Amino acid sequence: MIQSLCILPEKKMPNEIRKDYLLDRWVIIASERAKRPTDFPARAIEATDTEACPFCPGNEKMTPPAVLLYLPSNGNIEKGKDSNGERAENWLVRCIPNLYPALSPRKPITSTEDALHTRRDGVGAHEVIIESPVHNEHPDKAPLSQIRLVVQAYSDRLKALSKWEYVSIFRNHKKEAGASLSHAHSQIIATPMIPKSITDELAACRSWVEKDGGCPYCKIIESERTSPRLVFENRDFIALAPWASVHPFELWLIPKEHQHTLLQIEENQKDSLAQALKTCLGGLAETLSDPAYCYGFHIAPTHEGHGYFHWHLEVYPKLTIQAGFEKSTGLYINVTPPEMAAQSLRQSMANM
Amino acid sequence: MIQSLCILPEKKMPNEIRKDYLLDRWVIIASERAKRPTDFPARAIEATDTEACPFCPGNEKMTPPAVLLYLPSNGNIEKGKDSNGERAENWLVRCIPNLYPALSPRKPITSTEDALHTRRDGVGAHEVIIESPVHNEHPDKAPLSQIRLVVQAYSDRLKALSKWEYVSIFRNHKKEAGASLSHAHSQIIATPMIPKSITDELAACRSWVEKDGGCPYCKIIESERTSPRLVFENRDFIALAPWASVHPFELWLIPKEHQHTLLQIEENQKDSLAQALKTCLGGLAETLSDPAYCYGFHIAPTHEGHGYFHWHLEVYPKLTIQAGFEKSTGLYINVTPPEMAAQSLRQSMANM
Repeated sequence: MIQSLCILPEKKMPNEIRKDYLLDRWVIIASERAKRPTDFPARAIEATDTEACPFCPGNEKMTPPAVLLYLPSNGNIEKGKDSNGERAENWLVRCIPNLYPALSPRKPITSTEDALHTRRDGVGAHEVIIESPVHNEHPDKAPLSQIRLVVQAYSDRLKALSKWEYVSIFRNHKKEAGASLSHAHSQIIATPMIPKSITDELAACRSWVEKDGGCPYCKIIESERTSPRLVFENRDFIALAPWASVHPFELWLIPKEHQHTLLQIEENQKDSLAQALKTCLGGLAETLSDPAYCYGFHIAPTHEGHGYFHWHLEVYPKLTIQAGFEKSTGLYINVTPPEMAAQSLRQSMANM
Repeated sequence: MIQSLCILPEKKMPNEIRKDYLLDRWVIIASERAKRPTDFPARAIEATDTEACPFCPGNEKMTPPAVLLYLPSNGNIEKGKDSNGERAENWLVRCIPNLYPALSPRKPITSTEDALHTRRDGVGAHEVIIESPVHNEHPDKAPLSQIRLVVQAYSDRLKALSKWEYVSIFRNHKKEAGASLSHAHSQIIATPMIPKSITDELAACRSWVEKDGGCPYCKIIESERTSPRLVFENRDFIALAPWASVHPFELWLIPKEHQHTLLQIEENQKDSLAQALKTCLGGLAETLSDPAYCYGFHIAPTHEGHGYFHWHLEVYPKLTIQAGFEKSTGLYINVTPPEMAAQSLRQSMANM
């Protein structure tokens, strides 16, 4: 696209095309028209109408009964759920079925298939994790203890939904990233099949293991922690701007220990994950004035046999529009080189 | 997402999960929260500042010299190009290099690769096809003769750029779909590799041919022309709302004759394609009050050996946001069943 304003970086590097670590997915890193954080438009602060918010305390009746609640109890935290049509009000985290689920846990009735038309019933589960009683308490500003509870809820609901083939845990932040309510929340969709991106990653990972012997993600950690793409590191996690980032300011959080699913995470590692989330999403908010973003966990399918996989979390800031070229080819144009993104994020984190 | 307003179709069908005709790509068809055309917000008419538009006649100096021009000449049309720093002003269609190209036709210098980091120089081509001297003459309202010239330009530039591995021809309509200028235009990006979506389609197509003997797209035409997913048909083309549409109101235009690339299209078939484009994009504009959309051609790579492929054009209206679930899993949620989309589009076209 011809753009009337295009602020170029001081050092003009020619565009290059990079391949993902594992996947046959290529990205044009458009250094020639590279965008720094200040090149993305500043965002207006969103109005929050907490009175009408179905996720705010006092409005629990607007939503289905909770399948999981964390409740304060004598200085400790107790697990519970809503029962008998009643709704608890003093919760810290609240997990509910989505009122308009994409997939629901009814019994499958039919699966039909001819040469061209394959269909299955839309069975599975679709839940919402309300992350805090405080409307606007998103991970960048929530207390660490609250994020720790959210990580616990991810882990608890993942376990509860493990009868399905795959469980996707994800978060949409702001309207532009698909959030229809501004109250801090994540979502979980459990599916009766392994989704395509996960199948692709599993296949690429398996093929690497067969050739190399080791785990590619363990290798990525080893290689990238000393690279200009390193964003953050604590005892148990590393965050990086991946080599062939599809999105400007894309981030991956990877556990340093080889684990194929979030179910393997230990208690003290949950503390580290909460800290990594708070710091990285805080850095993103600081660098880009609280941008819209999505994140999603990539974990092994629930059934055994995927021990070779290495789970991780991918964060996609929503700063640009994927248009006709990207949508019809699966080749991407990224206007912020990951090294530039990592540098900006590290600087913001140092100032936090 | 919990939504405060959700207009349900009269007949509530349970959600189902459909697989693409060929690809291992699944889509949740969310009939339970199905959206009819009127459920999508009406769009404001965009302001058009034609004085500052670099694509409007008189402003040619704001853009690079044209590599192809269609010029009126004694009742006929003549091909030409800008030369000696001069810019022709009386053009009907104007093709120019993009001022900020994603890929440019310089010589590749380096390609580096280690186990995790593969990169190539960003070489290729990136052009803009200015479809009309009239700022707002988009395909839904352009005269058929003008769209016919655009089809000719696609074909001419595809031929000229065929030294690259793949040539992507696409169109972004409106800001929400990635168009940074509102003047009617398409784009072409020629790449030094075959993009992932095309590789996937080629592989799926090849595997079908090996198993079945025939072409899957010829089979799709045969099967869908009598289905509720048929949208439009003329002598040489069929348009349908595909079985596992990823996007609400997605449309595919497929040539009835088996052709692997747009380069094989004959002169009178170009007339048919222009008519199909005008009618389908007109129907889309009528049904959804001129929505944002992208379209992209899927054609065989330029090198020989892909005769088994069947080229087509995919149109993706931009009515919803692909969020964390879709982006991290490659599994999609489509809120308008294709049969409902096709019915609305057929009705609009009948009233046109």
